[in-house]
Amino acid sequence: MPAQRISSMDEEGLRLAFEEAKKSYSEGGIPIGSVLLRPNASKPNGIEVLGSGHNERIQKSSATLHGEISALEDAGRLKPEVYRNSTIYTTLSPCSMCTGAILLYKIPRVVIGENKNFLGGEDLLRDRGVEVIVIGDKDCQELMARFIEEKPEEWNEDIGGE
Amino acid sequence: MPAQRISSMDEEGLRLAFEEAKKSYSEGGIPIGSVLLRPNASKPNGIEVLGSGHNERIQKSSATLHGEISALEDAGRLKPEVYRNSTIYTTLSPCSMCTGAILLYKIPRVVIGENKNFLGGEDLLRDRGVEVIVIGDKDCQELMARFIEEKPEEWNEDIGGE
Ligand SMILES: [Ca+2]
Ligand SMILES: [Ca+2]
Ligand SMILES: [Zn+2]
Ligand SMILES: [Zn+2]
Repeated sequence: MPAQRISSMDEEGLRLAFEEAKKSYSEGGIPIGSVLLRPNASKPNGIEVLGSGHNERIQKSSATLHGEISALEDAGRLKPEVYRNSTIYTTLSPCSMCTGAILLYKIPRVVIGENKNFLGGEDLLRDRGVEVIVIGDKDCQELMARFIEEKPEEWNEDIGGE
Repeated sequence: MPAQRISSMDEEGLRLAFEEAKKSYSEGGIPIGSVLLRPNASKPNGIEVLGSGHNERIQKSSATLHGEISALEDAGRLKPEVYRNSTIYTTLSPCSMCTGAILLYKIPRVVIGENKNFLGGEDLLRDRGVEVIVIGDKDCQELMARFIEEKPEEWNEDIGGE
């Protein structure tokens, strides 16, 4: 899939998520990154970064700090209405847990780098009224494919096995 | 609903989850606790506690450490097959995020203290083949109802608002 035309906020969101993925890879970790953004006229570029993070399975021996969970955790306690006006960016299609977290907080919009290496809960999100945009980003796809080839067991563990 | 007849493992699992809930309440936190158990003949009572925890929204300003997520995080990195032979206990019906975490790790069995104060993803779990048992435990129900009455805003925040 060729890269779609995307808004400058979405471009920035995916760029920041991919920076997190690269940071994780450079630490020996699973290269999935995520950020939670919202429009905010008082910020540079009109974008407020509410939270950001990456998969921490290897770095922190964590079973739950996926990219999206890390970003939500980094954002901390937010009032319900803050999520309602936000977009979550993730380099890879969200697993069941991260899909569920998006539904819990009623985040209305999810922008996904790619879903070739893993296809998560996109249908469930759409069924529940969430806007799901898959960019088909080549950089996200290549970095993830490289990791899966290098550390297939760690990857398998992260998605709970076949 | 009257308390059901339950196995000694389920009784112990719910007891431990409720201990976690009470611990959280005594810290000023949301009283939801959870444990992940599996049968293990080499352990006392034949039960191995893989992980345990409680909601940490208030204690750690955490947006993702619900009871079940805390228990899974406490269990740490496990091989996929370990989850396949486990049961997760939770004092309250699991929200979307925790439901998704149970599906991610293909935990085959969920024992729930009560679902009167909150009804989570039980249908989705059953649709995906997970065995879901709701005990209807009065102690779990009363402690949760007390918290909701005392701190309605914190509770509302924890479930992402109406
Ligand atoms: Ca941050
Ligand atoms: Ca422990
Ligand atoms: Zn995930
Ligand atoms: Zn939950």
